[in-house]
Amino acid sequence: MQIEPIAFFRSPLKEKFGTPRQAGIAPGLPGTVEFCKGFEPAMLDGLEGFDYLWIIWGFSLNNPNAASSAKVRPPRLGGNEKMGVYATRSPYRPNPLGLSSVRIHAVDAAAGRIEVLGADLVDGTPIFDIKPYLEYADAHTGIRSGFAAEAPGGKLRVVFEDMPFAVSEPLRRQLCEILSQDPRPAYHDDPERIYGLNFDGRNVRFKVEGDTLIVLEIS
Amino acid sequence: MQIEPIAFFRSPLKEKFGTPRQAGIAPGLPGTVEFCKGFEPAMLDGLEGFDYLWIIWGFSLNNPNAASSAKVRPPRLGGNEKMGVYATRSPYRPNPLGLSSVRIHAVDAAAGRIEVLGADLVDGTPIFDIKPYLEYADAHTGIRSGFAAEAPGGKLRVVFEDMPFAVSEPLRRQLCEILSQDPRPAYHDDPERIYGLNFDGRNVRFKVEGDTLIVLEIS
Repeated sequence: MQIEPIAFFRSPLKEKFGTPRQAGIAPGLPGTVEFCKGFEPAMLDGLEGFDYLWIIWGFSLNNPNAASSAKVRPPRLGGNEKMGVYATRSPYRPNPLGLSSVRIHAVDAAAGRIEVLGADLVDGTPIFDIKPYLEYADAHTGIRSGFAAEAPGGKLRVVFEDMPFAVSEPLRRQLCEILSQDPRPAYHDDPERIYGLNFDGRNVRFKVEGDTLIVLEIS
Repeated sequence: MQIEPIAFFRSPLKEKFGTPRQAGIAPGLPGTVEFCKGFEPAMLDGLEGFDYLWIIWGFSLNNPNAASSAKVRPPRLGGNEKMGVYATRSPYRPNPLGLSSVRIHAVDAAAGRIEVLGADLVDGTPIFDIKPYLEYADAHTGIRSGFAAEAPGGKLRVVFEDMPFAVSEPLRRQLCEILSQDPRPAYHDDPERIYGLNFDGRNVRFKVEGDTLIVLEIS
């Protein structure tokens, strides 16, 4: 089956590094579904009555040389334990499709855009379908979710060193949501190492000491 | 992007007619995800810890001559009112992908099968991906779901005429779940008309008088 992008995602996050590993983990993170060729504003009629949206998208930043394998190491399990690929949401799967439920913030049909919150999509991600979230069919509670029973939760306390300019409150909040998740690979633990995150064109430099993440510079 | 089926669905429902219009509407309806070429049993390791599964599938029974259009008539609105295609779960959409959450009944990795309950997939439907349902990321409650705020609910009372042989309780219950939804097209209202439903190789004949559906024969 041949599928074509209907839209692309716009996010302040330009790389996989720092991008949340599931939807809703950074609930205040803004992003935009930007429709492309074939779009007509009428396609969104009625969507304003829904609070959440499903996005079916493509893992476009997969390493093309990394084959999909039967078992993967979910970051949730510290990168040591293996699980069957179909028991995970790993990007490396036979058909590299992603699935995310995001909050609808604003629908601008005339401009061919939907502003959303809480997505786990990198800037530029191709989108193949969107669907309204139907609570009666899609929401299941009080059920078992295997090794991912709980939301990962903020692992790190985030502090900002004195900056040469004020960091706006929304930016501070968005960075806290993202950085408290600990974007470092599971096997990293070097308090001297300085990491860089590309957020909305800014270079955010930070290091991690114990369970505290220190933002050193935003340029 | 080219995607290939990883599995096919097996259901007692062989046609669109009578197939539930969303997952979970017929919660007792059994079905099977049967993996195909490329499957390895290890791919399902860990899935037994989850209660629900996402299925991303293809609307393979779409009429090939019916173009996807910007607005569609959801059966929920009686077939009269139009909605933007992206505000609906209509099969006729730019990329004809379906999305369903189903209950996991049994995982048989060695046989390459997952028994599920409550699917809205017709027998033979190609499946492109399955993912574990993560309650913390996927379940949203107390939200607005537009024109589909409530589950459709059983519309018809189902009665069985005397049959030459006993109808087993599970079969009776499954047929009740399906038939109470009123499988007739929205514009049909002819108490004389006899309909046939293919259920697991049986021909189920019924008619509808007012809000009562009468099963006449199962052969």
